[in-house]
Amino acid sequence: MAYQGEPGAYSEIAALRFGEPAPFETFDEAFHAVEHREVSCAVIPIENSLGGSIHHNYDLLMQHPVTIAAETFVKVEHCLLGLQKASVDVNGKVLSHPQALSQCRNFFAAHKNLKPEVAYDTAGSAKIVAAEGNPAHFAIASKRAGELYGLKTFLENLADEDWNITRFFCIAHEEHTTDLYLRKKPDTSKQKTSIVFTLPNEQGSLFKAMATLALREIDMTKIESRPSRMKAFEYYFYVDFIGHENDPDIHNALTHLREFATMVKVLGSYGVVE
Amino acid sequence: MAYQGEPGAYSEIAALRFGEPAPFETFDEAFHAVEHREVSCAVIPIENSLGGSIHHNYDLLMQHPVTIAAETFVKVEHCLLGLQKASVDVNGKVLSHPQALSQCRNFFAAHKNLKPEVAYDTAGSAKIVAAEGNPAHFAIASKRAGELYGLKTFLENLADEDWNITRFFCIAHEEHTTDLYLRKKPDTSKQKTSIVFTLPNEQGSLFKAMATLALREIDMTKIESRPSRMKAFEYYFYVDFIGHENDPDIHNALTHLREFATMVKVLGSYGVVE
Repeated sequence: MAYQGEPGAYSEIAALRFGEPAPFETFDEAFHAVEHREVSCAVIPIENSLGGSIHHNYDLLMQHPVTIAAETFVKVEHCLLGLQKASVDVNGKVLSHPQALSQCRNFFAAHKNLKPEVAYDTAGSAKIVAAEGNPAHFAIASKRAGELYGLKTFLENLADEDWNITRFFCIAHEEHTTDLYLRKKPDTSKQKTSIVFTLPNEQGSLFKAMATLALREIDMTKIESRPSRMKAFEYYFYVDFIGHENDPDIHNALTHLREFATMVKVLGSYGVVE
Repeated sequence: MAYQGEPGAYSEIAALRFGEPAPFETFDEAFHAVEHREVSCAVIPIENSLGGSIHHNYDLLMQHPVTIAAETFVKVEHCLLGLQKASVDVNGKVLSHPQALSQCRNFFAAHKNLKPEVAYDTAGSAKIVAAEGNPAHFAIASKRAGELYGLKTFLENLADEDWNITRFFCIAHEEHTTDLYLRKKPDTSKQKTSIVFTLPNEQGSLFKAMATLALREIDMTKIESRPSRMKAFEYYFYVDFIGHENDPDIHNALTHLREFATMVKVLGSYGVVE
């Protein structure tokens, strides 16, 4: 189960639900590994409740012969980690990714003795603190990162904003989805389908596209437009809806959409893993 | 003109188009300054071509009594900056924000003698390199950051991905938009309006909402759904379309939408500043 990052990263927490995690340095490398069957699957973050959709990973989904096999949601819960013998009352420093540091402003306002210091990533900062062995050094990372690197969790729920959730897709090779041995089986009683499409630049074309779903009472759970890099006034549309690609209504809706869309790509039909 | 970041940040480049830039540490502080009339306007990033919509800033637009006065687009163009006497052929290190460093992987692959090192932000890393005075230290930041801190631009277009554009809103107090003295006037010949709305959780309600625009031939330029943090199965919809809130068709469409939407907020009608 490929993922991008270090052991203890939030992506690894997602990967663990599906199988044995295998770290890759970049998303591109994780996709490459799935395409060339070095791994059966990869988990990739696709959107976050604070940061929005990760367009770069939508691009990779379009460029590689992969399909979505499952989705899962991970709550980003920052913890303060330090050596077992450490104390948060001394003057010290706290390592983490700049984004994690900026999400914990209230904590730093209340702990003037602890100075933030930037690092490459959250899990990596826990690794550094464990390796350095200085009790005045702390990291902000997941609880799991603390457990992995033998650190103590001094405080949980460090972030100012509690509602920080990342949605991940588990992706597999598109010709290779029948023999996936996922640790947790996706719930197939309530499947979703994700598609990407482009439309002719005509008045009302998006309304027509949505009619193909709405007139068949298909429930959309996501819609997003993204300007195309190729042409001005052209957009990619990302749409998710309830149901499987092979359900008769959805099959008909997609056939209808293909009558006038300039491109339709089904990214996959999949269940959720809790 | 409030902005978040340091002089030389891409946000400051956006702010300069409107007036004298005034740096603030956080987006929340920039909004607070507009609300309490410490500044007449602020520029805030709202979406990026690689990273997607910045939901946190949509939240702030909803929470503060502000309106959008203009939009502008800034191309993120990373440069390699160093001291005048520096050489890129020595063994050295390159400071920047982790995201900027990860956007320049091809550069680092081709320059094994230069090691990336994390810093809080792009402009701040230029400031550090200038202050340290070590010719083996470089920064990845905007060309303007190099000019501000007296550094030489060794290389331009450092990023792997050329298409990195951030869209900014210039926001003003909602009761205070008539006496804005913007350095560059927005183009009012082609205005846009941005709205946020929520809908009853009913089959086809989004299709009905879109009909209020489509049946009046109003051109949408953006649509995005975002799950609500308050209720499961409730969404915020972000929609932009061509035209001014007071145009008769748009006025009628918004009245129509309010007949069944559970909330409609007009974030502003505005022109673009090049």
